[in-house]
Amino acid sequence: MTPDTNRRWLLASRPTGEPTREDFELEESDVSEPGPGEVLVRTRYLSVDPYMRGRMRDADSYADPWGIGEPMRARCVGEVVDSEYDGLETGDVVAGNLYWAEYATVDGDRVERVEVGDLPVSTALSVLGMPGRTAYVGTVDVGRVEPGDTVVVSAAAGAVGSVAGQIARIAGGRVVGITGADEKADWLTDELGFDAAVNYRTAGDLSAAVAEACPRGVDLYFENVGGEVSDAVTDHLTDYSRIAVCGKIALYNQEDGDVPRGPRRLHQRTRTRVEGFIVSDHAHRAEHITDRLRRWVSEEEVRYRETVTEGIESAPEAFLGLFEGTNVGKQLVRVA
Amino acid sequence: MTPDTNRRWLLASRPTGEPTREDFELEESDVSEPGPGEVLVRTRYLSVDPYMRGRMRDADSYADPWGIGEPMRARCVGEVVDSEYDGLETGDVVAGNLYWAEYATVDGDRVERVEVGDLPVSTALSVLGMPGRTAYVGTVDVGRVEPGDTVVVSAAAGAVGSVAGQIARIAGGRVVGITGADEKADWLTDELGFDAAVNYRTAGDLSAAVAEACPRGVDLYFENVGGEVSDAVTDHLTDYSRIAVCGKIALYNQEDGDVPRGPRRLHQRTRTRVEGFIVSDHAHRAEHITDRLRRWVSEEEVRYRETVTEGIESAPEAFLGLFEGTNVGKQLVRVA
Repeated sequence: MTPDTNRRWLLASRPTGEPTREDFELEESDVSEPGPGEVLVRTRYLSVDPYMRGRMRDADSYADPWGIGEPMRARCVGEVVDSEYDGLETGDVVAGNLYWAEYATVDGDRVERVEVGDLPVSTALSVLGMPGRTAYVGTVDVGRVEPGDTVVVSAAAGAVGSVAGQIARIAGGRVVGITGADEKADWLTDELGFDAAVNYRTAGDLSAAVAEACPRGVDLYFENVGGEVSDAVTDHLTDYSRIAVCGKIALYNQEDGDVPRGPRRLHQRTRTRVEGFIVSDHAHRAEHITDRLRRWVSEEEVRYRETVTEGIESAPEAFLGLFEGTNVGKQLVRVA
Repeated sequence: MTPDTNRRWLLASRPTGEPTREDFELEESDVSEPGPGEVLVRTRYLSVDPYMRGRMRDADSYADPWGIGEPMRARCVGEVVDSEYDGLETGDVVAGNLYWAEYATVDGDRVERVEVGDLPVSTALSVLGMPGRTAYVGTVDVGRVEPGDTVVVSAAAGAVGSVAGQIARIAGGRVVGITGADEKADWLTDELGFDAAVNYRTAGDLSAAVAEACPRGVDLYFENVGGEVSDAVTDHLTDYSRIAVCGKIALYNQEDGDVPRGPRRLHQRTRTRVEGFIVSDHAHRAEHITDRLRRWVSEEEVRYRETVTEGIESAPEAFLGLFEGTNVGKQLVRVA
C-alpha cells in the first residue's frame, strides 16, 4: 500500500559562509509508486554530516555539487514498503544513499539490507556505517597507528572522532581528544577510555595544553577540524609523525579568501606525512572493517552515542548544529 | 692494563646439514694492544643467533659468508679495558659487532655506549637489541598489524617471537604462539599474555590445532620457522592477510636439494602479501623502536627471558641449541 504524500528538503540557495535555515526548502509532493526494478523506502533515520556543506558549494571537489532546487541527499536507513525489485520485500530494513525525505522511490540496487545483528538499525549510519569506517580507515590505513603512539583526535566527541580515538586505544595508542565542552571531555575519558581530553574553548594556551597532555609529542593526529586546533597540535609532532586528514570542519563555512594559506607550521617537520583520504576510496575494506566494529561494539570495546532530532522538519536544524558542536557522537534525524 | 691471552672461536669448516662442534675451533692468542683510534673490549656477553648459520654457508645472501679459519662474529656487549679512541674510556660499557671471543681490539667507532637505563646490560643483545627491533619491524612496519587482527607467531618462545607476540598484543591483536614445549606454551599464555599457544610437537594435526586456536583465521603470520609449521598456518590465512618473513630456522640446516620447492599452499590466497625483511634495512627506526621497547619493559608491558651459557668455551653449544629449541627467549653466552 503506497502512502499519499512525501515531504523532502531541497537545496534552496547556496550559502555564503554559515548556512541558514533559509538555504533549505521543504517540499511536499505525491509519493511515486515503484516502477519495475524499483523499491519504495520509508526513511527511519537520515544522517546529516559535515561533508554535506561541501556539496552545497559550487566548487570542484571529490564529488559533484548538488543543484539548486534539487533534493538534499543523505545516507538513510528505512523500511521497504513496496517493492518491484527481485530480492527485496516489504518489511526489509535497508540502507542507501537517499534523500532528506520521508520516502524515496529508487532502483532496488541502490539500497542493501542492513546487517547490524542485535544492534539498533541507526548504527548502520553511525558506528557501523560511514563514520565508523572513516574512523578505522583514518586511524589504521592512512594514519598507520603504531602501538605506543601518542594519538590526538580533534572533534573527538563527534561521530568519527569518538570511534577513531577508541580504535587508536585498542591499537595500543595513548589517546588525547580535543573537544569543545567539559561534558564531552568527561565522556571521552570516563566512558571511552581516552587517556586525556582538552577543551579547546577553555584551555587558554591550546598549544601548551596539548604539550601537557602529550609529554612524548604527537605521533598521529587525526584531523577533523583544521584551523587553530590543527596549529596547536602541529607544534608537537614527532619525527615520522602522520596527520590523517579526515576533515576540516572549522573551515567549511569559510569562503576562499578567508582561509589562511601556507604550510601552517609544518615547515620544520620534514618527516611528517600529511595525507587526506575519502572513505569511499577504501570500499574493498568495508566488510572487513564493519566486521571488526560490530565485534567491538558487541563486546563493549567500542562505545557510541547518537544525538537524534525528531521529524523530517528538524533536518536543517540537525545539520546546522554540527557546526556548533551541539551533537555528541553521531547526529541523526529520526523520520519515522 | 692489557691482559695476556685471548681465546676466540674460528670457523673450522663449512657444515653440511646440521653443524657440529667440529665445525668450530678455539684459538688462543695474545691480546693486541689498541693502536691509535682503537679500543680493547672485554666481552661480557655474546649473542648467538640463527642467522649465523647462513654466514657459515658459502652461498649468496644479504651478507657475505664468513671465511674458513676466520673468527666467528657476534654482537657483543663488553667493557672497555684500554682505549686509544677519543670519546671512550676504560670502564665504558659498549656494544658492537665483534667476535666469539674474550677480547676484541677494534676501531673505536665500531662500538657504541650501551643505553639500557636500569636494565641489565645483556638486554642490549636481547629485548632492547637486534631481536627486539626485529620483532617490532616485523610486526609493525612489515606486518602492519591492525587492531583486531589474529596474529600467529612461530618460534614464539624465542628471542624474536616472544617480543613480536607481545607487541602484537599491545597493538590490539589476538595472539597465538606456536612453540615446541609445553613449558614454553605456558610461559607464553601465563606470563606474556598470548591468547593461546600450540605445541607443534604434540598437536597431532597441526593445521586443525591452528584452526581451533584461530577461529577467525590468521590475519598476520610472523614467520620464524618455515616448513610444515608454515604450511599449517597458511591453510587459515584470511583475505588481505600478511606474512612477515623474519626467518625459516627449520630450513637452515637443509641443503638446497632438500628444501621443498613451490608456492607452499599460497596459490589460493591471491590477496596475501608475503614480505621478507632484514632489520638492518630499517636502521633509521632503531632509536624510535628502542625507546618504545625500553618503556614497555620498564612498565612490564613487555617481559623477556634470557638463556645463558657460561664461558667462551660454551659458545658452539649455545649456538647449536638454537636448532634444538633448548633456549627460552634470547640465547646468550656469558664470557666475563
